[in-house]
Amino acid sequence: MIQDTVERYRTYLEKLRAYGHAMGLMSYDMNTVMPKGAGPVVGDTFGVLSEVMYDMVTSPETEAMQREILAHRDEVDPNLVRTAELAMEERERIACIPKDEYVQYTIDQTTADQVWHEAKLKSDFPMFLPHLEKLIAAQKRFAKYYKPDAPVYDTMLDAYEKGLNTATLDAFFATVRERLVPVIAKIKAQPDVSFLHTHYPIADQRIFSDYLMDVLGLDKNHCIIGETEHPFTTSFTKYDVRITTHYHEDAVEASMYSVIHEGGHATYERNIADEIARLPIGGGVSMSVHESQSRFFENIIGRSEPFIKAIFPKMQEIFPEQLKGVTAHQFYVAVNKAEPSLIRTEADELTYSLHVMVRYELEKRLFNGDLEPKDLPAEWNRMYREYLGVDVPDDRRGVLQDSHWAGGLFGYFPSYAVGSAYGAQLIKRMERDLDVWGNVRAGNLKPLVDWLTEHIYRFGCLKEPGKLMEEAFGAPFDPTYYTDYLTKKYSELYHLD
Amino acid sequence: MIQDTVERYRTYLEKLRAYGHAMGLMSYDMNTVMPKGAGPVVGDTFGVLSEVMYDMVTSPETEAMQREILAHRDEVDPNLVRTAELAMEERERIACIPKDEYVQYTIDQTTADQVWHEAKLKSDFPMFLPHLEKLIAAQKRFAKYYKPDAPVYDTMLDAYEKGLNTATLDAFFATVRERLVPVIAKIKAQPDVSFLHTHYPIADQRIFSDYLMDVLGLDKNHCIIGETEHPFTTSFTKYDVRITTHYHEDAVEASMYSVIHEGGHATYERNIADEIARLPIGGGVSMSVHESQSRFFENIIGRSEPFIKAIFPKMQEIFPEQLKGVTAHQFYVAVNKAEPSLIRTEADELTYSLHVMVRYELEKRLFNGDLEPKDLPAEWNRMYREYLGVDVPDDRRGVLQDSHWAGGLFGYFPSYAVGSAYGAQLIKRMERDLDVWGNVRAGNLKPLVDWLTEHIYRFGCLKEPGKLMEEAFGAPFDPTYYTDYLTKKYSELYHLD
Repeated sequence: MIQDTVERYRTYLEKLRAYGHAMGLMSYDMNTVMPKGAGPVVGDTFGVLSEVMYDMVTSPETEAMQREILAHRDEVDPNLVRTAELAMEERERIACIPKDEYVQYTIDQTTADQVWHEAKLKSDFPMFLPHLEKLIAAQKRFAKYYKPDAPVYDTMLDAYEKGLNTATLDAFFATVRERLVPVIAKIKAQPDVSFLHTHYPIADQRIFSDYLMDVLGLDKNHCIIGETEHPFTTSFTKYDVRITTHYHEDAVEASMYSVIHEGGHATYERNIADEIARLPIGGGVSMSVHESQSRFFENIIGRSEPFIKAIFPKMQEIFPEQLKGVTAHQFYVAVNKAEPSLIRTEADELTYSLHVMVRYELEKRLFNGDLEPKDLPAEWNRMYREYLGVDVPDDRRGVLQDSHWAGGLFGYFPSYAVGSAYGAQLIKRMERDLDVWGNVRAGNLKPLVDWLTEHIYRFGCLKEPGKLMEEAFGAPFDPTYYTDYLTKKYSELYHLD
Repeated sequence: MIQDTVERYRTYLEKLRAYGHAMGLMSYDMNTVMPKGAGPVVGDTFGVLSEVMYDMVTSPETEAMQREILAHRDEVDPNLVRTAELAMEERERIACIPKDEYVQYTIDQTTADQVWHEAKLKSDFPMFLPHLEKLIAAQKRFAKYYKPDAPVYDTMLDAYEKGLNTATLDAFFATVRERLVPVIAKIKAQPDVSFLHTHYPIADQRIFSDYLMDVLGLDKNHCIIGETEHPFTTSFTKYDVRITTHYHEDAVEASMYSVIHEGGHATYERNIADEIARLPIGGGVSMSVHESQSRFFENIIGRSEPFIKAIFPKMQEIFPEQLKGVTAHQFYVAVNKAEPSLIRTEADELTYSLHVMVRYELEKRLFNGDLEPKDLPAEWNRMYREYLGVDVPDDRRGVLQDSHWAGGLFGYFPSYAVGSAYGAQLIKRMERDLDVWGNVRAGNLKPLVDWLTEHIYRFGCLKEPGKLMEEAFGAPFDPTYYTDYLTKKYSELYHLD
């Protein structure tokens, strides 16, 4: 009897996976090679497929199967039980949204994303505004349908990392701001970074990317690199993971750290246990945990001196002219230059969280407070002045710089800061189990990946993110690991007292 | 009442379009960038989606809608009537196949395609054989389900071009062979083609491809070029058309004519009338008509002296070293070198149809006769000796060279020869309406594309292919236009008496 339901549920899940695959691929294509004029057609296709998915996920038959599996949890594969558990939560979040609103939102999202690309190019916020307003209004409605009495933004944060809310984040960012702003203030003399910005031909940068993927241990039989405007990672099961980058001929470090960052996301996905790989639980558990891995490899490892020393000979081989006379140490210092700036994705580790804070504060006021979307540019610029001390010259380098809002990803940004903090606590724990820096210096990241697989990756969504990290840390989450790590690193780099 | 059905039918068609879009994109991805290890996952996704499509196309509700529309044909948009008409034919072809066989075939096709790539690389026919056998057996069964009493191969040919059968093709190929073999036999002294095979960097060839797309008038907002092993064209409505090419650093003409050939397919798709663009009838009407366009641009235009003269200055700008001292006339002569050879896609216009004939004869015997798949390599090699006088050194350059059979495309090959012949008759008709060669010499293909749009492209599948071409020719199809064209062209090129 229950075995019959299990069979039907597996068939259902496989069908769900196929639809997710198709829509994921379409989104990947849209952001890499799709000709721009295909926009309306792809939007309509998203509409059709998302309606089918909505019907599948919210149907009474699906609910009945899941309830039955949960009622017989002791007789069923625990992976399926966990899948059904999370699916019931997801179902609640979705089933309360009227279908036509849900489908329309999918189409609006596709349109908004396309308009945003053009608006950013033209630095034209008014062009993007009506689309942004539509997405924000829809998200507010959706959150209210789901939890009528909770503050909207808390409901949204919870979707990216279960358990995260404004109370926790207010405290987190207060600590970060309090501890890091004084460090930033002490920085005076800046290193020479001119050699990062000579001419680095894209063809050579492509070779360098391939090498970095090898260093990260990414198997090209299951992981490819594509090119896009705003780098991202996507996966259609762990057997097909796609990272992307964007090459700038006058900034070798831009794509370099993009590849390592996205490579961190890919490393997570690639090391999920095979047994759960095709199930909905066979992916990263939350955006904070995902960003903890990408930013771990990008910064804690990738911007460390041992790592630079390990890869520098190869870099000099690929870029002999550009790096002639440059030492690994100079390169290390240059890629860690800390300076308040305009663009989040190009920010150094030290000031990075302040960029995230601006977005967090704005989102909080957009959803829980009374900030209107039309006032975003002015508020953005005011806060960049206040938090980072810089003047935003135009919206392209201001409120239009990130792709997230255009994709409806409100509540995502805090993941970057929390993830960075997770990473700092993780490395301390990891150092007790293995010779982290000896291995990094030897260019051997495998023991690190193995450790992370053992403690984090393999579980996919089997554990709640908070619990997963606490067990990996062997202690509760503590953001001072992060502030201590940055204070120490930058005090040494800049010889601060 | 009927308006209600029309509404429902439009919704159904839009859904069908979305599924076709998703599966088409997945296939495009698989043949361009997908990491090889993702094969099993993508195969399963194809299985799931093809099952949904099978259910949609064969459901009694769909049949009822279509019957009703056809019963009220005078009250309904003629484009929908034509769609329903063709859909009923397609339905008959599919509904007779048991669903599990249909779905399994989709999965087997994906697997066969992947195995073939590896088998070709290793020149290992036995590795590919079991997969090929499966596809052939399935196609035989499918043809028998549909038309139990018709010769299998005729049923299959009809799927690629309605009305085409072995009787017509036997006569066609007999004419071709009879008229062209004596011409081929007369060719003795060969021109110098060494300048085609010096070093042509891929980066420069990419620039050249972009230029060729401009010459063809392909709007990059709706048409992109990708890279693949075996070039093809695909489209997800006319608003998103994708051509592909493969670059060889030591053969500039390979990608050049690949781009023009695929560009011809794209030109067809891009010029279908907007009113039918999103309907199932909004695509090329048959493979012969499609190949008539690709091979028209590739050969009749692309390998003509006026065309070479028009683009040669730009070629010399892109490849200044490689083409130093070469004249447009020398280039024209070189890209028309006629010589029996091993590889169909690299064959010259004159011997090309003999390559197709080999495949046609083999398919005919595979499906209507008693040729076993395991005997294909020996028969292939024997016929290449007999028809082309060449010895096939290995299966990679023999029976494994084309992707078609691995994709289940049996009955497709004749389209190339018939399409080539269509093109030769078309140009004669076109020459009566406009100054074809004056425009080509000026690098202005627009009047040609406009003429073809007027007579062929815009109709999509509104007319039957045979009738479409007859109306475009203003006369019945006559293959001697083709043999006359080739005889004249090669007699001049090689100064034959």
